[in-house]
Amino acid sequence: MSGSTFGRQFRVTTWGESHGKALGAVIDGCPAGVSLSEEDIQRYLDLRRPGQSDITTARKEADQCEILSGVFEGKTTGTPISVMVRNADQHSKDYADIAKAFRPGHADYTFFEKYGIRDYRGGGRSSGRETIGRVIGGAIAARILDELGISVCTYTKSIGTVEIQRCDLAERHLNPFYMPDADAAVAAKEYVHKAMEEKDSVGGVIECRINGMPIGVGEPVFDKLDANLSKAMLSIGAVKGFEIGEGFQASLLRGSENNDMFRVSEDRKVVKMTNHSGGVLGGMSDGSEIVFRVSVKPTPSISQTQKTVLEDGSEVDMEIHGRHDPVIVPRAVVVVESMAMITILDLLLQNAVSRIGQIKKLYDR
Amino acid sequence: MSGSTFGRQFRVTTWGESHGKALGAVIDGCPAGVSLSEEDIQRYLDLRRPGQSDITTARKEADQCEILSGVFEGKTTGTPISVMVRNADQHSKDYADIAKAFRPGHADYTFFEKYGIRDYRGGGRSSGRETIGRVIGGAIAARILDELGISVCTYTKSIGTVEIQRCDLAERHLNPFYMPDADAAVAAKEYVHKAMEEKDSVGGVIECRINGMPIGVGEPVFDKLDANLSKAMLSIGAVKGFEIGEGFQASLLRGSENNDMFRVSEDRKVVKMTNHSGGVLGGMSDGSEIVFRVSVKPTPSISQTQKTVLEDGSEVDMEIHGRHDPVIVPRAVVVVESMAMITILDLLLQNAVSRIGQIKKLYDR
Amino acid sequence: MSGSTFGRQFRVTTWGESHGKALGAVIDGCPAGVSLSEEDIQRYLDLRRPGQSDITTARKEADQCEILSGVFEGKTTGTPISVMVRNADQHSKDYADIAKAFRPGHADYTFFEKYGIRDYRGGGRSSGRETIGRVIGGAIAARILDELGISVCTYTKSIGTVEIQRCDLAERHLNPFYMPDADAAVAAKEYVHKAMEEKDSVGGVIECRINGMPIGVGEPVFDKLDANLSKAMLSIGAVKGFEIGEGFQASLLRGSENNDMFRVSEDRKVVKMTNHSGGVLGGMSDGSEIVFRVSVKPTPSISQTQKTVLEDGSEVDMEIHGRHDPVIVPRAVVVVESMAMITILDLLLQNAVSRIGQIKKLYDR
Amino acid sequence: MSGSTFGRQFRVTTWGESHGKALGAVIDGCPAGVSLSEEDIQRYLDLRRPGQSDITTARKEADQCEILSGVFEGKTTGTPISVMVRNADQHSKDYADIAKAFRPGHADYTFFEKYGIRDYRGGGRSSGRETIGRVIGGAIAARILDELGISVCTYTKSIGTVEIQRCDLAERHLNPFYMPDADAAVAAKEYVHKAMEEKDSVGGVIECRINGMPIGVGEPVFDKLDANLSKAMLSIGAVKGFEIGEGFQASLLRGSENNDMFRVSEDRKVVKMTNHSGGVLGGMSDGSEIVFRVSVKPTPSISQTQKTVLEDGSEVDMEIHGRHDPVIVPRAVVVVESMAMITILDLLLQNAVSRIGQIKKLYDR
Repeated sequence: MSGSTFGRQFRVTTWGESHGKALGAVIDGCPAGVSLSEEDIQRYLDLRRPGQSDITTARKEADQCEILSGVFEGKTTGTPISVMVRNADQHSKDYADIAKAFRPGHADYTFFEKYGIRDYRGGGRSSGRETIGRVIGGAIAARILDELGISVCTYTKSIGTVEIQRCDLAERHLNPFYMPDADAAVAAKEYVHKAMEEKDSVGGVIECRINGMPIGVGEPVFDKLDANLSKAMLSIGAVKGFEIGEGFQASLLRGSENNDMFRVSEDRKVVKMTNHSGGVLGGMSDGSEIVFRVSVKPTPSISQTQKTVLEDGSEVDMEIHGRHDPVIVPRAVVVVESMAMITILDLLLQNAVSRIGQIKKLYDR
Repeated sequence: MSGSTFGRQFRVTTWGESHGKALGAVIDGCPAGVSLSEEDIQRYLDLRRPGQSDITTARKEADQCEILSGVFEGKTTGTPISVMVRNADQHSKDYADIAKAFRPGHADYTFFEKYGIRDYRGGGRSSGRETIGRVIGGAIAARILDELGISVCTYTKSIGTVEIQRCDLAERHLNPFYMPDADAAVAAKEYVHKAMEEKDSVGGVIECRINGMPIGVGEPVFDKLDANLSKAMLSIGAVKGFEIGEGFQASLLRGSENNDMFRVSEDRKVVKMTNHSGGVLGGMSDGSEIVFRVSVKPTPSISQTQKTVLEDGSEVDMEIHGRHDPVIVPRAVVVVESMAMITILDLLLQNAVSRIGQIKKLYDR
Repeated sequence: MSGSTFGRQFRVTTWGESHGKALGAVIDGCPAGVSLSEEDIQRYLDLRRPGQSDITTARKEADQCEILSGVFEGKTTGTPISVMVRNADQHSKDYADIAKAFRPGHADYTFFEKYGIRDYRGGGRSSGRETIGRVIGGAIAARILDELGISVCTYTKSIGTVEIQRCDLAERHLNPFYMPDADAAVAAKEYVHKAMEEKDSVGGVIECRINGMPIGVGEPVFDKLDANLSKAMLSIGAVKGFEIGEGFQASLLRGSENNDMFRVSEDRKVVKMTNHSGGVLGGMSDGSEIVFRVSVKPTPSISQTQKTVLEDGSEVDMEIHGRHDPVIVPRAVVVVESMAMITILDLLLQNAVSRIGQIKKLYDR
Repeated sequence: MSGSTFGRQFRVTTWGESHGKALGAVIDGCPAGVSLSEEDIQRYLDLRRPGQSDITTARKEADQCEILSGVFEGKTTGTPISVMVRNADQHSKDYADIAKAFRPGHADYTFFEKYGIRDYRGGGRSSGRETIGRVIGGAIAARILDELGISVCTYTKSIGTVEIQRCDLAERHLNPFYMPDADAAVAAKEYVHKAMEEKDSVGGVIECRINGMPIGVGEPVFDKLDANLSKAMLSIGAVKGFEIGEGFQASLLRGSENNDMFRVSEDRKVVKMTNHSGGVLGGMSDGSEIVFRVSVKPTPSISQTQKTVLEDGSEVDMEIHGRHDPVIVPRAVVVVESMAMITILDLLLQNAVSRIGQIKKLYDR
C-alpha cells in the first residue's frame, strides 16, 4: 500500500484520520523562492467550511494549520513543506454505537476486509477530513500557479436537479452552495431542505475552469492532462464521474460538430474557433480554457433506517445520528479545485524539460 | 516527458509511432510461472481489427506480434516481457499533403507546440496504433486474471443515439460493433452509414463489467480503484468521460436511493442488496460487480472541408482523404478492456501485502 | 526536487530542518496489524543520542516522538503513519555569525547555488537532525522484520586507524562508540581525544550484518538488494563509500578465491561453503548473512581556522564555535541500521508477488 | 518485480536475456530535438567488445543496434526511443551440461529460488549481455550531456594488484584494458595471463571522472547525486563497492585534511582549493570534478573444478567450459560510464525546476 502520494515532481503526501491527533500533508518538490504563509493555506482550508449555514454540519473545528518545515523567512526553500492541522476533538463517543456496523455507502466494509482492522471513529482515513491534506497541497500549488498567471475557478453547477442558468462568478461566494447563480442557489436551498425533511441527502455536479495554461502541458500517452485530472477527481471520496469538454455529450455528436477548427488570431496566434475539446488535444493543453465536470453522489450518511451488517456478521437496522451534511457538494468545491491545481502544476513542472532547447537555456552559464 | 509507463507493480511501457519501424510494449513486474504464448497476445490484437466490415478502415496490416524476452519454455520467468509488432507499411505518401497542417480534433498542434518537432506520419505517437502496446499489456494481464478467476467483459453500449436495449453477451461477437444486442447493432449500422454519406463520423459509449474481484483491492486515498481506472480510460485517445456505478446519474439521486444496503447471504457472506456504487466503496472493490462506462468522441478525421492552420501560421481549408473509421468505438472496446485489466492487476499485486498476516504467510518457511 | 521519499512499497518521506519547528516522517505502505507504540520508536531515536559522553555534543533535546496517525488501539491500520519530533530549541543565535559563510565540508554552498535561498540555521535540511525521520522509518520497519524473524546488527568497525580486533556484540552497547570490542573502544577514545586537542575531528567505518533473510529478495537488474542498500547508505550525509562482502578487496582476489561454492546441509538445504559475496548473488539475497560496510568522513565542523567565502563573494577566515561531535560515527550507527531495515523491508514487500503461485495462495478464498 | 527501469525523468527500461531473441532498451523522457543516429549508439556498443584480444571472449556477435521509434528525420521527438539488438546465436547447446547446476558466484541459485523458473542459457537475464540496454541508454544520454558541455571519462584504475601510476587519457584506447597508463597495461596483461594459466580469473577497479556539471545537481536527501551514482554502480552485475572522493580513505583522515576550503577565483567564482569530496557536497554537485571508483570482482566463470549443487539438490563437481573473459573489468568500463551518464542526466533534468525563477523563465511568453 503506497497510495497516499499524488504527483511526480510536485508530490503531495497526505496523512491523518478523522479522529486521530492531527491531519496533514508533506509537499515535496515545491520550487524554492515562493512566498508562502500560513494565511495563504488557511484561506483555502476555510473554504472547506462553508459552515454557518443549515446545509453544512456544525463540527466546531477551527482547522488551524501550522507550517512545520520548508519555509524560511516567508519563502519556500525547496525542501519538503510539512503542514499540520490538529484535530480539536478526538473523542469517539459519538461513533460508539456504529463502531461495529458497516454503514451503507461508506468504506467501513472494504477497509475492514482489506486490512482486518479499521479506525471506525468518524470514518477514520476515509472521512471527508482526509481532504484537509489535499487542500493544503492545493493552496501551495495556487501560489505558484498565480506567479505563472494561471487561474483556476471552480463552482457548483447543479444540486440534484437544480442547475445553474447563468455563470456569474461574482455570485459564487455569496451563497453557501458556491453557485454562480443566486437564483439557482435559492432553488437549491429549497431542494435540499425538502430532502432534509425526509431524512435524506442529495448530490450534484461541480465544474472547474482553468485559464492561462501554456500550450503542451500533459504527457502524450498515459499521463495525459485529462487522464491525470480524471484520476485526481475520482480519488475524491464521493466523486462518481468525470468528463472534459463535451464529455458524455461527445458520444452523441458528429465529428463535424465536435471538432474545433483552427484559425489565426489578430495577434498572430493559432486559436481554436470553438472549444468542444475542453482545452486538451491528445492529452496536452491546447491553449483554450480547460473545462471539466465531476459528479458528486448524495451524502451516504442519512438518518433514515438502513439495513446493514455488523463486523461479527449479524444483520441490524441502523440509523445514523448526529448532524451530517445533507449535501457534500459545497465542501467538495475547494477540494476539486485543490486537486486540479496540484495536477496541472505537477504536469507543468514535468513539461519544463520537454525540449533540449529549454534545458540548454536553463543551464546556460 | 516520462509518461509512457502505466502501473507500479505490473508496469506496462509502450513505444512506437504509427509509421515508424515498429510498435511494442515492455511489461515489467509480471509474476513468474504464467503460461504465455504469442497466440495469447495475438488473439487480443486481432480484436483491434474488427475489420472485414465497411465501418472500419482497410489498412492491411496483420499486426503480428513477436515475444522477444521474458518467456522461457512457454512460461513467464519474472523478467521483463518485450513484445513487438512490425509496421508493415512505413510509407508516408498518404500523409504528405497534410504533413504541415494541424488537423482539427487531433494532437498535431499540441505535439508541435510541446516538442517543436513531430512525426506527422499518421499521427505519429498519437495515432490509434499507439494502443497496440496497451493491448499487448492487457493480453498478458488477462492470463493472470484468468488464473485468479477474475473475468472482464467489455462491449459497446451505444453508437451515437442508438443504445442497446438488452445485454446478451453472446451476441457481442456477432456484429462489428461489439454490441450485446443484435437489433441495436442493425440500427447502429444504419446510423453510421447515414453519417458516412454526409462525410461525417459518430461517437458512442463503451461499458465494462468485472467479476470475481477479491474484496479490498484499490488503495484508499489517491490510488483508488476507480481513480486508477478513470486515469486508464482517459489516457485512451478519444475518451472524454468516465463514470462508475450510477456515475453522473448519482448527482440526481437521493442518498436513500444511491446507498447499497448490506445483508448476509445464505452462504454467510456480507453482500450488497443493490449495486449503485458500481463495485467500489471508498476506492476499494466491495465484492460486487465493477461496472463503468466511458464516452468516446466521434472520429476527428472526416472528409468534410475544415478550416485549419499550417505550421507556418497560414490558414487553409483542408479535406482529410483516405479511408478513416467513421466510428472509433468498436476498435476501442478491446483497448478499454486491456487498460481495465492492466489497472486491476496492478492494484491486485499492490494489495497483496496489505496485512502483516499475509506477509508472514508468504515468508513462512 | 522530489527526493525526500525512499522506497516503493514501504515508503518513508522525511521532512524538517535543524532549527525549524519540528522534524518527522510519514511512512506509507506499512502493513496493517503490526503492534506499534511511541516507545518502539523512541528506543531507536534514543540511540541517535549516545550522548552523556565527551565525544558527542550536548544539545539538550529529548527528541520525543509523537505518533499522529496510522495507529489505532496499538496496531498499525495500513494508513500512513505520521510521526513528529518537535525541535525544543529554534533559536538561531548560535549560528548568527556563520549565517552568510559557506562552511567547508558542508552543504551550505551547494544549497545556496541550487535554490538561491537556504535555511542557514544549523545546516537546515542538511543537518544531522534530518536523520530523525530515517530513524523513525527504521524503527517501524524493525517491528515488521522482527515478526518475520529477520535481525539487523550494526556497529562501529573502526574509528580512524583504530579497528576492532574481535566482534563481541554484547560489548557493543557498553561503550559510546558502539564498538563490539571494549579494548578497541578504549583506544578509539584516546584517538578521538588526541584529535579534539588539536581542534580536529575523525572518521570511521560502520559494518552491518543482516540475518534471517529469505532467499531471492532484491530485483535482478536495477533494484538489486546491494544497489538499493548502497543508495540508502550514500544518502546518509557523511558517508563516502559502500562495499558488500569482499567489497574493494574483491578486486584483488582470484575467482577461485572469491567464489562461494555450494553444498547441501544436513537439513537438506542448499548452502554456501563461504560468504565472500556478502549474502547476495545477482542482486538477490542468497540465504547467507548479508554483510556490508560504509565509510564515514570526519566531522566537517572543526574549530580550527578555515578559509572560506561568504554569500556575497568575499573571502574570510572562519572558526566554527559551539560544541560539535568530534566524530559522527557513533550517531550514524543507528542511521545506517535504520536505512538498512527500510531498504530490505521495501524489497521484501516487492518480492512478495514474484510468482503466480504466491499470488494465487494469497487470493485463495 | 518491477526493477528494470532506472531514472525518474530520463527513464531507461531494459529487457532481454543472453540467449533470447533480442535485447534492448526503451528510453522515455528524452528531450525532443536531439540529433541521434544508430551510429551514435553503435559507437558505445562497440566499446563493450574490446575483443580481438586474448583477454576477452570471442563470441562473434556484431551486436548491431536498430532504432525502432522516437527518432524522426534524425532528431529525437520526445516520444520513447526503442532500441533493439538481435541475438545472433540463440542456440543453447553450449550450456546444456550446466543447465541444472548452480554456478558458484553466479545468480543461478537466487533466480531459481526467487522465481521457481529460470532461463539457464548463458545466465539468462543476469548475463553480462543485459548491459547492452544500459549502454544504449548511456549512448543517448551522452548526446545530451555533450550539448550541455558535460564530459564523462572512465578508465581502468587497476587490474588485480596492478595499478596505474599515471593517468594519460590518450593511452586509454590503446590497450585492451582501457588503462590510461601503457606500462601498467603491459603489467596487467602479464598478471591476467598468469591467472589464465591457472584456470583462474581476476578483478579490478574502475574510475570515472565527470567535468562540466552545473552546481547544485542532485537532490538533498535520498536522491543525492552520490547516492544515485552508487545505486547505479552496484546495480552492475560484478560491482562490489563504490566510493566517491576520498571514499574509504576518508575514514582515516582528520576533518582538517578532508575538508575542502573555499576561495574566489580570478574570474570571481567560488572554487574549492582541494577536491577531497569528489565533487559533491550534501549530495549536490559542487562545481569541481566528480570522481568515483568501483570495485569489480573476478569473473565467476572459471574452468577449475568447483563444488556445487543441482536444481534437484544433488551435489556435483563442475567445470565451466567454453571461453570466458578472465577479467570483466575492460568490458565494464563502458557500462560504468553509461550508468554514470544516465544518472547525472536524470538528476540534471529533475534539478531544472528547483526554483520558481527558472520556471517563470521557461514559461515566460
